[in-house]
Amino acid sequence: MEPTTRDEACFEAGIKFGALYHQFAGTPVSPDSAASLETAIEESIENQPSCESVEVDILTDKLAAEIDHGYTELTGKFMAVEIVVEHEGTEVVTRMAMEDGYPLMKIESVGDE
Amino acid sequence: MEPTTRDEACFEAGIKFGALYHQFAGTPVSPDSAASLETAIEESIENQPSCESVEVDILTDKLAAEIDHGYTELTGKFMAVEIVVEHEGTEVVTRMAMEDGYPLMKIESVGDE
Amino acid sequence: MEPTTRDEACFEAGIKFGALYHQFAGTPVSPDSAASLETAIEESIENQPSCESVEVDILTDKLAAEIDHGYTELTGKFMAVEIVVEHEGTEVVTRMAMEDGYPLMKIESVGDE
Amino acid sequence: MEPTTRDEACFEAGIKFGALYHQFAGTPVSPDSAASLETAIEESIENQPSCESVEVDILTDKLAAEIDHGYTELTGKFMAVEIVVEHEGTEVVTRMAMEDGYPLMKIESVGDE
Repeated sequence: MEPTTRDEACFEAGIKFGALYHQFAGTPVSPDSAASLETAIEESIENQPSCESVEVDILTDKLAAEIDHGYTELTGKFMAVEIVVEHEGTEVVTRMAMEDGYPLMKIESVGDE
Repeated sequence: MEPTTRDEACFEAGIKFGALYHQFAGTPVSPDSAASLETAIEESIENQPSCESVEVDILTDKLAAEIDHGYTELTGKFMAVEIVVEHEGTEVVTRMAMEDGYPLMKIESVGDE
Repeated sequence: MEPTTRDEACFEAGIKFGALYHQFAGTPVSPDSAASLETAIEESIENQPSCESVEVDILTDKLAAEIDHGYTELTGKFMAVEIVVEHEGTEVVTRMAMEDGYPLMKIESVGDE
Repeated sequence: MEPTTRDEACFEAGIKFGALYHQFAGTPVSPDSAASLETAIEESIENQPSCESVEVDILTDKLAAEIDHGYTELTGKFMAVEIVVEHEGTEVVTRMAMEDGYPLMKIESVGDE
């Protein structure tokens, strides 16, 4: 059947997550450069349609503990992300965090604004 | 409120689209190398959870018409994509095509399998 | 024959350029988000071995002139980049700018520091 | 001082390596999809100027040993790569392999064809 506004809102939220992850995974990152990368990821993805807010937290302690040549490549295990999408009156709150060794992306809540 | 299975299915479909686009946009491509890239994109994204099928059509005629140094970078205007997600009994059919100069990703249908 | 230190310095400079371009091409960008992206690209690539400095200039006037949905995807035509590599006493200065419709990467100078 | 043809050949070889790595790192990959990804990477990078040949070997045994959800993201530890560049009569043979836990890219030989 035809998609509802709510379906579209959830779809849009997924697009932002897939985009964020696959655009920036692999970026060289160190504890010192983490802050500028967080800001750039947030402002970049917030450009996309229906994207209310993006919050990226690069886990610098974990980064510092695991690197020994000064930097590494960004992957899901070094990030916590929250993305809020607002599409025609429906708000979707989504989150990515590590679960069982994998970066799991999931919907926290869907509802009217 | 809590997400439903249907919400999650739409979210998963969005993730695949965002991933596909931002992983492969920018790849050097020519009419001769388009076929192997189509196959690799399809098989790569089909690895992701709940992904039933991915069909990528790189528009080689359009590619041939626009390049003059033998190759260009893959972007949305050179691709048509269909992705089908199946998540706990809900099937979501999604499509990307050019609309108004932009690669528009949208849900075609959502329903029970 | 075996590579010289100078060969390696030029090779390292090329790696940085290829990395920069293919990591960040496709990133959603607007005139408002260009500054944070410039900083993140610079600090990210400067993490790599032998990388003395990276200067990225996103051409916001050009960006503003070409976009009509608020943002676009970063490609070579919206960037000017200078990368300086220093490898075991040899300095290589490299630059990317548009030439003949293509983002051309080239060596400006190679020499002792 | 001005770059020589040999400098440029080494620079071009580096560009191909940086491009290959940062375009395809992060791609979802499994033992079953590795072959199509190898071919696509090779044909894609061979489009670039002066690129004679690209050989990518995705280490499927290593992949199979390390994944437990059916797939993982491509990174340097799952790849061996050889790239040959030919620029105005100078041939550069380059290779990437793991060394000391890092994917090390290096020049094997530089010379007249």
